[in-house]
Amino acid sequence: MTDKEFAVLFDKYMSDKRDEMKARFNRVLPSGEYIFNRFEKAPYLGCGKNTSIYDTSVVLGDVEIGDNVWIGPYTLLDGFNAKLRIGNYVSIDSGVMIYTHDTTRMYVSGGMAPAEAGDVTIGNCTVLGTMSIVSCGVTIGNHCIIGAQSYVNTDIPDYSIAAGIPAKIIGKVELLDEGEVRLTYY
Amino acid sequence: MTDKEFAVLFDKYMSDKRDEMKARFNRVLPSGEYIFNRFEKAPYLGCGKNTSIYDTSVVLGDVEIGDNVWIGPYTLLDGFNAKLRIGNYVSIDSGVMIYTHDTTRMYVSGGMAPAEAGDVTIGNCTVLGTMSIVSCGVTIGNHCIIGAQSYVNTDIPDYSIAAGIPAKIIGKVELLDEGEVRLTYY
Amino acid sequence: MTDKEFAVLFDKYMSDKRDEMKARFNRVLPSGEYIFNRFEKAPYLGCGKNTSIYDTSVVLGDVEIGDNVWIGPYTLLDGFNAKLRIGNYVSIDSGVMIYTHDTTRMYVSGGMAPAEAGDVTIGNCTVLGTMSIVSCGVTIGNHCIIGAQSYVNTDIPDYSIAAGIPAKIIGKVELLDEGEVRLTYY
Repeated sequence: MTDKEFAVLFDKYMSDKRDEMKARFNRVLPSGEYIFNRFEKAPYLGCGKNTSIYDTSVVLGDVEIGDNVWIGPYTLLDGFNAKLRIGNYVSIDSGVMIYTHDTTRMYVSGGMAPAEAGDVTIGNCTVLGTMSIVSCGVTIGNHCIIGAQSYVNTDIPDYSIAAGIPAKIIGKVELLDEGEVRLTYY
Repeated sequence: MTDKEFAVLFDKYMSDKRDEMKARFNRVLPSGEYIFNRFEKAPYLGCGKNTSIYDTSVVLGDVEIGDNVWIGPYTLLDGFNAKLRIGNYVSIDSGVMIYTHDTTRMYVSGGMAPAEAGDVTIGNCTVLGTMSIVSCGVTIGNHCIIGAQSYVNTDIPDYSIAAGIPAKIIGKVELLDEGEVRLTYY
Repeated sequence: MTDKEFAVLFDKYMSDKRDEMKARFNRVLPSGEYIFNRFEKAPYLGCGKNTSIYDTSVVLGDVEIGDNVWIGPYTLLDGFNAKLRIGNYVSIDSGVMIYTHDTTRMYVSGGMAPAEAGDVTIGNCTVLGTMSIVSCGVTIGNHCIIGAQSYVNTDIPDYSIAAGIPAKIIGKVELLDEGEVRLTYY
């Protein structure tokens, strides 16, 4: 096969995939999403049922993910140096980065200091807002809301709303009858 | 064709595309950009003339984009649950995420509460700074500057400079003679 | 070759690459990483030894990168309008965006005002934290730490810790004996 014949076949393959995604779901996505679908990547990673994870999510090492978890594009889930555990019905919004290691001291010392590490756990029914960051050693509870663009470097108890750089607790979550959610800000 | 013959042809295809981009534009890009060019993706989406949109932009649902719009890499344009309208001569800087829906209450309630939604409109000659976020239901006017890493959850009137998490109006834009732009900070 | 035969070969090619990465390194990555490896992209860009740069890093124009530099996913290195220089043993964390140009005034004026530009230099043994931004004309010294999600628009001297939007100096770095690093916050 000539290079030109190959190019024609490949371009058609990708264009057909894009057309199909647009026709069925009205979505036009980064081209990697046409290669590995987010509902196929999740079981490949051993995630629970009804979980999806975009192609543009970097997943390193020991990462355990439950059921009904949505993991957006441009995310990073690091279980390379320690364990990362994510519960059920969690939303890891687009651009979220979760770290179990920290190489800051290593780099500023020109490689003299070691990397640091610590397990991270995210509870059930918790939302990590868009582009928030979780640093190593942190546990976030159940039914928590982490505000967009927050930097979480301390533990966050159940039913907390936390936000800021670094994140502080700014409110609480209450679940009322019939699916109503009350958010109170302190 | 053997797997090995396929690999040789594919590797050459991608390497040639990369070499061509580097030689012509002195750019080395995420490999998806070699598959779908940003000046081809824009008309595919029905955008206006002279608009470009990187391959690594996630575009969902009902999104309408005008002329001379620049849409950077790692962006997200959500028109899935409501309409997203972007005017002419707009800069959607790298990493910007615009939402017409919000599933926060849905996730913290374990699926009991519904998702929220609302149209978003971005006016003409407006800049959304790098990694800023626009949340559902917001209208941003013409000739506005949204600071990098801002979170916009309220309407922003014409000629405003807004920044912060959440974004507040911190200044104004004035257009003087001969293309001069005066930015005043309060 | 039929479209279907092509699809089978391509799917196997990508799946084999993914399986190999998972088996050898326990990593599941954006599919572009299987096409251009980060340790191959760095020499392609003329970087120094032991440097790696993810496929999902946008590299524009005149960018010079030293030895032992780690450049994460979803980054942007802009040397399109002016020079970008990055020293040795630098960590460009995930999502970092470095600009040598600024088109804000150009866009708000509907194309009347020109783009601005200025060289950027990053010293040795410096860490740019996750999703931080460096704007045009800035010099960051040696042994500096830039906090995650910071916006750096002024020069930062050696041994500084800087953070915030915009970034201010909030502490200092001291290198003690035997690789110990002391971080003092003011």
